[in-house]
Amino acid sequence: MKIYDFTQAPNPRRVRVFLAEKGIQVPYEQVNIAGGDNRKPEFLRINPMGGLPVLELDDGTHIAESVAICRYFEAQKPEPALFGVDAKDKAVVEMWNRRMELEILSMTAGAFRNTSEFFKGRIPQSAEYGAICRNAALKRLEWLDKELANRQFIAGDRFTIADITALIGIDFGRTTGIKIAPEQKNLQRWYDAVSSRPSAKA
Amino acid sequence: MKIYDFTQAPNPRRVRVFLAEKGIQVPYEQVNIAGGDNRKPEFLRINPMGGLPVLELDDGTHIAESVAICRYFEAQKPEPALFGVDAKDKAVVEMWNRRMELEILSMTAGAFRNTSEFFKGRIPQSAEYGAICRNAALKRLEWLDKELANRQFIAGDRFTIADITALIGIDFGRTTGIKIAPEQKNLQRWYDAVSSRPSAKA
Repeated sequence: MKIYDFTQAPNPRRVRVFLAEKGIQVPYEQVNIAGGDNRKPEFLRINPMGGLPVLELDDGTHIAESVAICRYFEAQKPEPALFGVDAKDKAVVEMWNRRMELEILSMTAGAFRNTSEFFKGRIPQSAEYGAICRNAALKRLEWLDKELANRQFIAGDRFTIADITALIGIDFGRTTGIKIAPEQKNLQRWYDAVSSRPSAKA
Repeated sequence: MKIYDFTQAPNPRRVRVFLAEKGIQVPYEQVNIAGGDNRKPEFLRINPMGGLPVLELDDGTHIAESVAICRYFEAQKPEPALFGVDAKDKAVVEMWNRRMELEILSMTAGAFRNTSEFFKGRIPQSAEYGAICRNAALKRLEWLDKELANRQFIAGDRFTIADITALIGIDFGRTTGIKIAPEQKNLQRWYDAVSSRPSAKA
């Protein structure tokens, strides 16, 4: 078993933080996105989408998509439960994880993908859409600050994958200057708590 | 228990098809997106994102996000298993469901949202990004056709939520003229099979 990884990208970080919270160790193999190694035929046989991370199981199965990899390990080692504990709680965690993905991570990533020099010539870019993403991300941080007035973590009173997705989404905002505003004190309190967990360094 | 629904949008359809496959009946209450009812304060108290569908449980809990709602019912009634059967299969289904969401549904929806009269004035639009989404969706249909050369369904030999997501994603492409091409015979064979299931009419 091993995980194809790229330390500078947000989705591989989601898996590393998740595994650190679980106390699971898996060997990593770096695939250099910056050098285009994820677009070479040998990697496209592993993941035709070209994305990272990818989990390679001992039977040769390849599991791409960071949340799919996290679910695999949740089933292998249920504790601590990072996807929720019963039917209702699991649905609530899924809802919040998707909101953090669609409203935060997709927006900070969309801002970067559509405006950065890094992606110029690699993907079709729209600076206009990058600006839309940036504004959306800033508005969503305002909203998230209000949501966090009455609870400790994103999906309730326990740390879950929704906190991991929010953390990597917000941290990736640094690439385009999207930041928690000084008045967003609930969000900052949450951010300080999750980013000071040892897993955040994974 | 009830589900806030809007029959013309793709995500509510995902839940209706899922429940039809499960043989579960839940009362629906229509919320008129076209008339802006989902942006009114009373609905924003139910889902601050303004999106549909939303499941309301008898204890008053609101579960938004269509996949979260589907997971809730998968836990309540595991058969037929639409999210996979064991740890590895569940990870494979999650991978394919996310690919269908990110590569197909997000692209056909992105093409519509960014170019349609319907969304003009409702959300910030970028026709440039809409065209990028449209091209991406057409390329992904080419790729999906090749993937389906050697298996019956999107995630393997069983019908899963990945088929539902692909179906609603492809059907929503009609809004911007994104269609399966005549030479995409594997994809057409798959499409004919899933769209002729009784659930497709839900």
